[in-house]
Formats: sequence, structure tokens, C-alpha cells
Amino acid sequence: MTNKFQASITPPDATLDEEIWSKINLKTKPVGSLGKLERLAFQIARIQQTLTPKLSRPAVLVFAGDHGIAKTGLVNPFPQEVTFQMVMNFLSNGAAINVLSNVSEMEVIVVDAGGNHEFDSSLPFVDAKMGFGTADYRSAPAMSLDSCHKAMHKGAEVVINEINKGTNVMGFGEMGIGNTSSASLIMSTLCEIPLEECVGKGTGATGDLLDQKLRTLQEVQAFHGLTSATATDEVLATFGGFEIAEMVGGMLEAASRKCIVLVDGFISTAAYLVAHKMNPSIQEYAVFTHRSEELGHTKLLDYLNADPLLQLQMRLGEGTGCAASFPLLQMAVAMLNEMASFESAGVSDKKED
Amino acid sequence: MTNKFQASITPPDATLDEEIWSKINLKTKPVGSLGKLERLAFQIARIQQTLTPKLSRPAVLVFAGDHGIAKTGLVNPFPQEVTFQMVMNFLSNGAAINVLSNVSEMEVIVVDAGGNHEFDSSLPFVDAKMGFGTADYRSAPAMSLDSCHKAMHKGAEVVINEINKGTNVMGFGEMGIGNTSSASLIMSTLCEIPLEECVGKGTGATGDLLDQKLRTLQEVQAFHGLTSATATDEVLATFGGFEIAEMVGGMLEAASRKCIVLVDGFISTAAYLVAHKMNPSIQEYAVFTHRSEELGHTKLLDYLNADPLLQLQMRLGEGTGCAASFPLLQMAVAMLNEMASFESAGVSDKKED
Repeated sequence: MTNKFQASITPPDATLDEEIWSKINLKTKPVGSLGKLERLAFQIARIQQTLTPKLSRPAVLVFAGDHGIAKTGLVNPFPQEVTFQMVMNFLSNGAAINVLSNVSEMEVIVVDAGGNHEFDSSLPFVDAKMGFGTADYRSAPAMSLDSCHKAMHKGAEVVINEINKGTNVMGFGEMGIGNTSSASLIMSTLCEIPLEECVGKGTGATGDLLDQKLRTLQEVQAFHGLTSATATDEVLATFGGFEIAEMVGGMLEAASRKCIVLVDGFISTAAYLVAHKMNPSIQEYAVFTHRSEELGHTKLLDYLNADPLLQLQMRLGEGTGCAASFPLLQMAVAMLNEMASFESAGVSDKKED
Repeated sequence: MTNKFQASITPPDATLDEEIWSKINLKTKPVGSLGKLERLAFQIARIQQTLTPKLSRPAVLVFAGDHGIAKTGLVNPFPQEVTFQMVMNFLSNGAAINVLSNVSEMEVIVVDAGGNHEFDSSLPFVDAKMGFGTADYRSAPAMSLDSCHKAMHKGAEVVINEINKGTNVMGFGEMGIGNTSSASLIMSTLCEIPLEECVGKGTGATGDLLDQKLRTLQEVQAFHGLTSATATDEVLATFGGFEIAEMVGGMLEAASRKCIVLVDGFISTAAYLVAHKMNPSIQEYAVFTHRSEELGHTKLLDYLNADPLLQLQMRLGEGTGCAASFPLLQMAVAMLNEMASFESAGVSDKKED
């Protein structure tokens, strides 16, 4: 009997909405002139149900997992060991996510969701291991439905643990050679968008390799025959990976605990897509941090009506969009808490029209 | 005899270019996957002629000035006193630029370029006053050519003073009721773009007031009859304001001293346009920080082939785009200095194609 994951997400109360907007609009600036920062401030205040929100112990979780398909070399220009090597790099503070998070003053939490490597338990990572990589989905689901539910539970546990340490804003990043392929299959199936529009170069598949990646994934899609009518957890289990399933559970859990969910790039948004299908109320808690260069991301964001904060032509994953955008959240909150009002500053408001 | 302002800007040497790119490309990430952050890191390293650049004492200069036209109420929904009131707000740390710069850990330097107010000399502002606002350009140039040159010199002095305190990256912001009108006239004249495409709502001119703003500026343009063939300093003197002229001199001086020039929104970009016409080599030192919602800004950026870092639907000025984007510069530099290389991290590079 499988222990299905469920999150109960309560949309934020609307009672304070008017008061929050009024506070924003009385700040010493033309109404609306801080654009997205104002809407961000509103969203955060609404989530926290206060006129003086706070961002505490900001963290980026980096879920790492391996993919059966990656062993074949059919879809990825980098070898599978790079997942493990990059985890070691995260743990040594040498990766992009470490460097960017350092500027943003965010914690980096490295989660082994299913890397094909036995990590030394003395290393500072979170053990949420579901296995040594998923199955090759060319011939079987990447994981069983039961494993998929377990992974979601594990992801939720990781999130609870960080929330218990004081985190109320959390980025969801990932590492896993082959995982743009999973994300493309999930997106294509759930959004009913042809794979041609969902499959991009990932870490750098170009030319013949990109053609082969697309052909391979088209065969995989045909083999499994799933559609948007298939149960969402089955789609997730079929295409994987463990890191994506843990992100889905983690995102849902975070939203259920009124923690701000920072969505990163293509794979993180695919995980969000699954979470959103399972519980659309998550959208109230989600901040889309950037528009990636990965081919499918813009279409996926459009499907979700998401308008991200940054567009820096990045396509790295790891949560780098979350870290790059986090100062904007700090600015939005500081605007609400620290900026003077027309009245307090003695500034004349706009003349009556 | 007028003392014309001249800046000698040396484009950065290209000798290190290959080495800088090689350092960026060997970082543990797919080549190019940090998008604009990589090009930013390259630009900064090139400006500083080092593989290990540093950003020191980052500052935003906010040049404040008043405009004769603003007394008429023909172009602006806020009264002229708001310039003075907002300067007081900057000095009390209550404005958006203070709050955003606080997050970005930038100094805010408030410069009185020509506000229509006598500021108490005990207040912490920089006195670079050219007068109590410009003349109303409906009947005469906003300032004389001599005043324009003096203002450029004063702007340069302000910049030199901050560079002497250790600043090597400097944002150029402004405050001045009526100054989107100056910027629109400068842009339209120098870029040969009709005023209809250059005149936007500024602090909030909408409906009839916006029509009146456009009509007024069309009359002003016809009255003076300047064209793109007119000497650039004459265009600047005719349409003003003092804060824009000081920004032009300041930007040129900063670039001549190899200081990174952060260009803010519409007015700051109009000042940059003038500086660029005077010395195109400034472009090597300029970082465009954001795309404003102000109507003419996108066309002006296109004219300059500029691709800014942020697009947050902001339209506030003050240097807020500089402050909002500064963490991205810090991340670019941190990437170059702190991220591991494939070799140092023991990560496998891409398989040979």
C-alpha cells in the first residue's frame, strides 16, 4: 500500500490586501514606479500576513540525482560522474551556486536524492537517498509509484528540517546529468506541448547529439504512452528523477507551511509544474526567479502564467536563479519596512488630476 | 572664453581578453551558462586589466536639479518643491535609493546640482550647485553654454572626489521634477526620433497632462530648431538640466579614470547618450543596469545597442536600477575570483564532440 504524498495548502487570507497596497502606495515614489518589486513586496507581506515581513535564514536546496538514461550517453554531453563530482564541488564551496549564494547570504543545503555514488557520511550533505540513480526509462518507469511517493515524502522532510531551523524562504535547485530530459518529458506530457518545443541542449547537447536526444525522448514518450490525463504522480514516476520528485514534495510542503518557494530554471519549474498540478494553491507561495535560456523554459513559464524576476540568459540550474534574484526580495521587503511615506518624509503627493 | 569640458578615455587594452575568457570558460559550468554574468565579469576584468577584479566602495551619485519648465505645471504632475523634499528624504535615508543601496551595500552620495532651494550646509550633501533651477526653455536655453561646461566640470569634480575615496564602480542617478522632459528633448534631437516616441509619463503625467506635456515639448523643439547636427553641448545646454550636465561630465570623468559607470533609467541614459556622443569610448566602461518602463527608454537603449541587466518595470530614477542590479556585479566578480575550475574541482569536462 503506497503512502501517497499530500500537502494541504491554505491560500493566504485576503483581509490585509488593501492595507498592504495602501502602505506600498504611500511610499515616497510615484505609484507603481518600483514595478515588480512592489508586487513582490505585496506577495511576501500577504504570505506572512503582516505589513512588516521578514526574510529569515534564506536557503537554497540543491537536490542531486542520477538518471538511468544518462549512462547511455544518448542525451547528455557530460558523463554521469559529473553529478557526483559537482556534489563534491558544492560541498567544497566551489560551484556557481556557492559563489552566488555567498553574495546573497543564503545557506546552500546539498541533498543527495539519488546520486550514483556513496557519499562519505562525514560530508555536510543531507542524506535523502532514494537509490543510485533511476532506471533507464527507455524500457521501464524511472521509478515505481511507491518510490515516487517516498521521494516526495523525503523531499518534504528535508524542507521541514530547514524550516525548523528558521528558514521562511527557500530556493529549489538541482543537479543531475540527464535531468533536462526528465523535465522535457514531464512538461511535454502534462502541458500537451510537442517534445520538439520542450527539448533543448541542457548542459550542452548540440548538433547530432541534440537530434539524438530529441529522437530518444520521442521514442520514450511513445513507449510509455502517457498523456495529460494520466495521474500526475505516474508521469513523475515514469520520467523521474529522484531529485525532481523530492523537489515536488519539498515545494508542496514548503507552501503548506507558508514558506516562500523560489523556483529556479527549467528543471525546477518542471518540478513546480507537477506540484502545481497536484495543488494549484502553491502558486500563491511561488516566486519565479529567472527565465532560463533552456529551450522549453519560456513556453513552460507561459503555460504557468509566470513572469520571472530575471532574464540573464543563464542556463545552469543548481538554484543559481534563486541566488541571483534573492537580493531583489530583500529590496522588496526593505522597501516595505524602511522606506518613508509621503507623510513621514513631508513630501508633497501628486497634484489632484 | 568658455572652458569646454574634455575627457580623455582610453579603451581597455585587449591583451588579456583571451586569458579572461579562458578563466571564465574553465569554471565548473557549461560554457556560457551564466549568460550575462559572464559577459559582465569579462567587462569588469577587462576594465581593471586583471584576472582578479575587485569592486571597491561602490557608490550611487544622485544629482538633483530643478527645471524652469516645472514651475509652469505644463509637464509635471508633482510640484517643483518635490525635488527639494526628495533631497531631504535622501538625506534622511527614507527614499527608495537609500533602501535599495542599503541592501546592495552602496554609498549614496547626494549632489545638489541645481535644486531650487538653499540647503543647510550642515547637511551631508555635496554642493555642486549651478543655480536655483534652469531657465524655462520655452523662451531661452535652459542654461548658457558656459554654464553647461561649468556644470560638466563640477560633475567631474564630484566623481574625482569619490574615486579618491576608493570608489571604482559608480551609479549615476538623479532627481528633478521635470527632467524626463529634458531627457526626451535631448533624445529626440540627438537620435532623430520624433518626440511622440520619446515622451512618456515621467512621475505620472497621464491623459490630458501627457498630451499637454508632448505638445509643450514639441513647441519647445520647434522654437529652438536644433538638430542632430547641432553641437552636442549646445543641445545639452538648451534643454538642460544642471543635474544632467553634471552627470555627463561625471560619467566621462569616471570612464577616463577607468571607473565602472552604472547607467540607470531614462534620464541617466539620456546623460549617457550625450557623453557617448562626446566620446564613444565611454561604452567600454558602461554597464546598463535596467530597462525602465518610461516610454522612450527602450528606443534609447536600442539606439545605443545597450542590453541592460534588469527589466523590473521600474520607472523611479534616483539610481534605483544601479542599486537593484549591483549584486549581479558582485556575483560576476565572485564567479571569476571564487568559483572552482574543472581542474581544481576534479570535475570531468564535456566529452569531445
